[in-house]
Amino acid sequence: MDLNFGEIFLWEMLGTAGLILLGAGVVANVVLKNTLGNNGGWLLINIGWGFAVFVGASIANPSGAHLNPAVTLGLAAAGKTEWSDVPAYLIGQLVGAFIGAVLAWLTYKLQFDTHDEPVNTRGIFCTGPTVPNYVWNVITEVIGTFVLVFWILLSPGAEAGDDVPTFGNSALGYAAVAFVVISIGASLGGPTGYAINPARDLMPRLAYAVLPIRDKGSAEWNYAWVPVVGPIVGGVLAGLLYQILPTS
Amino acid sequence: MDLNFGEIFLWEMLGTAGLILLGAGVVANVVLKNTLGNNGGWLLINIGWGFAVFVGASIANPSGAHLNPAVTLGLAAAGKTEWSDVPAYLIGQLVGAFIGAVLAWLTYKLQFDTHDEPVNTRGIFCTGPTVPNYVWNVITEVIGTFVLVFWILLSPGAEAGDDVPTFGNSALGYAAVAFVVISIGASLGGPTGYAINPARDLMPRLAYAVLPIRDKGSAEWNYAWVPVVGPIVGGVLAGLLYQILPTS
Amino acid sequence: MDLNFGEIFLWEMLGTAGLILLGAGVVANVVLKNTLGNNGGWLLINIGWGFAVFVGASIANPSGAHLNPAVTLGLAAAGKTEWSDVPAYLIGQLVGAFIGAVLAWLTYKLQFDTHDEPVNTRGIFCTGPTVPNYVWNVITEVIGTFVLVFWILLSPGAEAGDDVPTFGNSALGYAAVAFVVISIGASLGGPTGYAINPARDLMPRLAYAVLPIRDKGSAEWNYAWVPVVGPIVGGVLAGLLYQILPTS
Amino acid sequence: MDLNFGEIFLWEMLGTAGLILLGAGVVANVVLKNTLGNNGGWLLINIGWGFAVFVGASIANPSGAHLNPAVTLGLAAAGKTEWSDVPAYLIGQLVGAFIGAVLAWLTYKLQFDTHDEPVNTRGIFCTGPTVPNYVWNVITEVIGTFVLVFWILLSPGAEAGDDVPTFGNSALGYAAVAFVVISIGASLGGPTGYAINPARDLMPRLAYAVLPIRDKGSAEWNYAWVPVVGPIVGGVLAGLLYQILPTS
Repeated sequence: MDLNFGEIFLWEMLGTAGLILLGAGVVANVVLKNTLGNNGGWLLINIGWGFAVFVGASIANPSGAHLNPAVTLGLAAAGKTEWSDVPAYLIGQLVGAFIGAVLAWLTYKLQFDTHDEPVNTRGIFCTGPTVPNYVWNVITEVIGTFVLVFWILLSPGAEAGDDVPTFGNSALGYAAVAFVVISIGASLGGPTGYAINPARDLMPRLAYAVLPIRDKGSAEWNYAWVPVVGPIVGGVLAGLLYQILPTS
Repeated sequence: MDLNFGEIFLWEMLGTAGLILLGAGVVANVVLKNTLGNNGGWLLINIGWGFAVFVGASIANPSGAHLNPAVTLGLAAAGKTEWSDVPAYLIGQLVGAFIGAVLAWLTYKLQFDTHDEPVNTRGIFCTGPTVPNYVWNVITEVIGTFVLVFWILLSPGAEAGDDVPTFGNSALGYAAVAFVVISIGASLGGPTGYAINPARDLMPRLAYAVLPIRDKGSAEWNYAWVPVVGPIVGGVLAGLLYQILPTS
Repeated sequence: MDLNFGEIFLWEMLGTAGLILLGAGVVANVVLKNTLGNNGGWLLINIGWGFAVFVGASIANPSGAHLNPAVTLGLAAAGKTEWSDVPAYLIGQLVGAFIGAVLAWLTYKLQFDTHDEPVNTRGIFCTGPTVPNYVWNVITEVIGTFVLVFWILLSPGAEAGDDVPTFGNSALGYAAVAFVVISIGASLGGPTGYAINPARDLMPRLAYAVLPIRDKGSAEWNYAWVPVVGPIVGGVLAGLLYQILPTS
Repeated sequence: MDLNFGEIFLWEMLGTAGLILLGAGVVANVVLKNTLGNNGGWLLINIGWGFAVFVGASIANPSGAHLNPAVTLGLAAAGKTEWSDVPAYLIGQLVGAFIGAVLAWLTYKLQFDTHDEPVNTRGIFCTGPTVPNYVWNVITEVIGTFVLVFWILLSPGAEAGDDVPTFGNSALGYAAVAFVVISIGASLGGPTGYAINPARDLMPRLAYAVLPIRDKGSAEWNYAWVPVVGPIVGGVLAGLLYQILPTS
């Protein structure tokens, strides 16, 4: 697989847009009042985000379906992705995440306009802690992202690839990624909402800040660095540990 | 795969009948009072519709398992299905959807006859918006159907086929389609109930209008064009975008 | 695959025992008071029964994993199972279903002994209608079982086999059967509890009648023929329809 | 596959650490007050533990992904694992389970510190019966673990391996193990919380006893032998029965 900058950008952009459209969408469905999924619970959100990754990753299969700067940097740290390709991945992910957030807002435009507590809509776009504490919130995000990237590197199917691990042999392949994301959400998402992906949190937060959403609340920029730094640290740690394991 | 009109009609009819029997069935189970699944929640409905597509698509594997005019037209726009085969697909889907709706009613006949609010049974058969607005309701259906057809066209397994994408190499293959439909339902179904399929909405609505369902309410024909036009626009847009992507 | 009477009996007995242990188990978990799954809902029951079939069918893979007289008779009607093998299948299924019911009772012995409404424990073992009506209850069971057997016969993976359809190429293969059973439960199980299997209903009912379960209620033998006759009719109809389809 | 002591220890340790981090994590998410998954229900816990096994087993694929002394001893009893390798498996599993429990505590550190009923946090780490009775609690654990190990030995994919059954041909392979564990949890976990794994219960119980968890309650060591003895008996029984079956 030898993709140029434009191809990596294109597939990561399309896949991440799909991921965030579906991921922000399921939270909108559960949080906003005039929806069919209102009050649908944490399992619905977990399954929604998990299958959002399934759909986005299937779309981005040609570029290896990173969709996540922490995955890209972790794979680079593990020697699986060329450092020269990293900018194309990151830019595609950031642009796609913004587009996905805009599309999720358009899908639920009428619900945003008629929501009874519009000040609480930030959680549809980006994460926040249930108990704020920078140190421990970062640790939680480090652990969650470590599990994600470590699993990607060691998963039997992923190992088969050479440079870029890929699950792309069949339409079902990326269901494995959905199951890992459901697992991390169900098990490690309780304290901070499992960003585990800097693009997934930062760009929808920006979209929330700039979009004309009715009576919206604060984008809480003071917390924005946590779901960027934590996932990057977790992903790179996973890549480095992988390097010293006997199979690498 | 070179099927004649009758074969395409037969398999699409059988598969779509299964899809609507199971899809309308899960909503009946949740909505009607004297059932074991009463009040079962949105996740049950999402999973029910997702696996309904799994079952219906497995049955219709010989014809490529479209089950949906928006899929057929999107694949035709993408150059994956012959335009001359489109009428056989559409007619099979429409006839099958009507049969499936009748079977779902027969399955729950006693529950329809003993339901305490029979005027609200339309939602078992066809979709409706939580906030009525033709423009935004169409946009929501366009986005949901775009995701479905774009994923079908780009899914690793689907790409392997030539003319008609198929997931039919194993009994599990169509589980991938179930996961996408669960995803769209969980994430994008909140505002309009994710018809994302003209046959799925139009023919059960017709069945609701003509069947002797006890004390039934209005079929709300004024909304009927939205889940027809929105999905067709979304599916064709996905097919056209696919045409200009570097892999097509 | 050329199994003798004893081998078919053994594998069907072991697989059906696993199926009923896990299937009755999940209902016990939801219905009985002193359990961790008490009041867990219809989706939990659906998923529990679906994966019960997955486990039981994986165990019974050597004999083709029927686990169900309606499947055996439907496959025989379709020309996929030798009529001379049918007795071994049926006897294995009936014996296994009884053993599974006893094991489920032993697993939940303390919960049966401390349940506050012991008269309502019949539903853990066998099915009953929410609205009793022999004609319509039979129709519901016919439709549900027809979907099961028709899907087995037409599923892409199943067709690959010759005499006995098998999903046994990988550990995940029988997950397809779980998904179909979850679908039928979610969508068609509302009126009668989806027996869709004569052995699954009859033998646990017998176990309920003969086991020394504390303060138990009636086994409701008057209804017992419905989940025997309905599934057999549905399975055989599916087999006969399969015979006249162009692929058979 | 011919691994030395250190390699078996390493992979079992890493995989079991992942299993317990995610398994204890989902219970923490449901039990502790200041989490997003609080009160998420039994199905969330079942799915969380099931996919925890999926992730841990994928990581431990090089050593055959036992993660469980009952599996190791059952496979040894069945003649599938060398007795000389058993110590490396057990030690890796015990060490990994302790590490995983510590990581789960760190992930939810803020929630443990702000929980309103800290005395009830033992259930996050280890199991306990809803109705205490040593004999019947052991029987329940025997039955649940028997199903797990018997399925592993007979599962179509697992049988393909020679010495160590493996599901490692693709990233999705271990999803089969997740489905079995979800099944056992949903169906047989109601009375005792389905330890079905001595390492999964004993070492997190030890972690609970020694970690400085705020205002913690008793580790209930009097019950600790039940989820050790029951699973070992169940696993070995499955291995012995497998030995006398016609396929072994």
